Amino acid sequence: MSLIRDIPDFPSPGIMFKDITPLLADQQAFATAIDHVAERFVGSNVTHVVGIEARGFIVAAPVAYRLGAGFVPLRKKGKLPSEVRGIDYTLEYGAERLEVHIDAVSSGDRVVIVDDVLATGGTARAACDVIRELGAEVLGVGVIIELEFLSGRRALGDVDVFSLLKY
Amino acid sequence: MSLIRDIPDFPSPGIMFKDITPLLADQQAFATAIDHVAERFVGSNVTHVVGIEARGFIVAAPVAYRLGAGFVPLRKKGKLPSEVRGIDYTLEYGAERLEVHIDAVSSGDRVVIVDDVLATGGTARAACDVIRELGAEVLGVGVIIELEFLSGRRALGDVDVFSLLKY
Repeated sequence: MSLIRDIPDFPSPGIMFKDITPLLADQQAFATAIDHVAERFVGSNVTHVVGIEARGFIVAAPVAYRLGAGFVPLRKKGKLPSEVRGIDYTLEYGAERLEVHIDAVSSGDRVVIVDDVLATGGTARAACDVIRELGAEVLGVGVIIELEFLSGRRALGDVDVFSLLKY
Repeated sequence: MSLIRDIPDFPSPGIMFKDITPLLADQQAFATAIDHVAERFVGSNVTHVVGIEARGFIVAAPVAYRLGAGFVPLRKKGKLPSEVRGIDYTLEYGAERLEVHIDAVSSGDRVVIVDDVLATGGTARAACDVIRELGAEVLGVGVIIELEFLSGRRALGDVDVFSLLKY
């Protein structure tokens, strides 16, 4: 079985979804993928890895563990229980909002943002913006899959972007 | 700041929510928590760690990485893109449904289920049931927090349960 599975018309008609669950379930591939994303940021004194709900958590949390960093969840509206800073943005499927606890990171913190897929870059860009609003530095963005035809890297400006696989 | 934060009336009135985000964000505490949950299952030849959406992913994925196991997401209805096996169950807040890809695990696989919190045990019990329906063996359940007054351990029968912190 392929480690990356193409699913046509998910979550909406016309979208070819890249399903990474076979890669995650494969002992060797999962470990290798996490190691590769983490290794890009070894030696950068990363204090926190930010994961984007929900699939991003699956990649970001082990990358944080591997780097000896803390983990910070960036969640959809209303999911975090304490005081949040929110950011509204748009992506292919419509308007979205992400929230982070206001005390999650602060000035002096060195943050890497990790998600499963980089598509148009709208989500990753919003993540960078809200983390900077809290005073922390964004060292880079790491993803398993980059959909190059959607030019997400360009939307991120001069942020360092690492992707394991490009389509 | 305390590593576990009490949030009254979240997500509904009368519920005292245990917020583990300060623990996750603390470099030392996050690593130690993952190590403790994983170490309970070292030497058990775990093939897959199953994480329950969404907070469970944050604990389960690094535990899978630490054990050299694959990661399998158990998600809410309609979130997984390929063919699923679903299970309906009830918990404090109402009826719920979890789904897993039917090819995620199979006979001969040795599975640990990991979540952030064990409350009444309804979710963990559903997770055990659906994984067994796919033919895999459930070796145990690991959580960061066990709310002992809700007797979740009892709902799980003779499944081995490891919790890092008890309230």
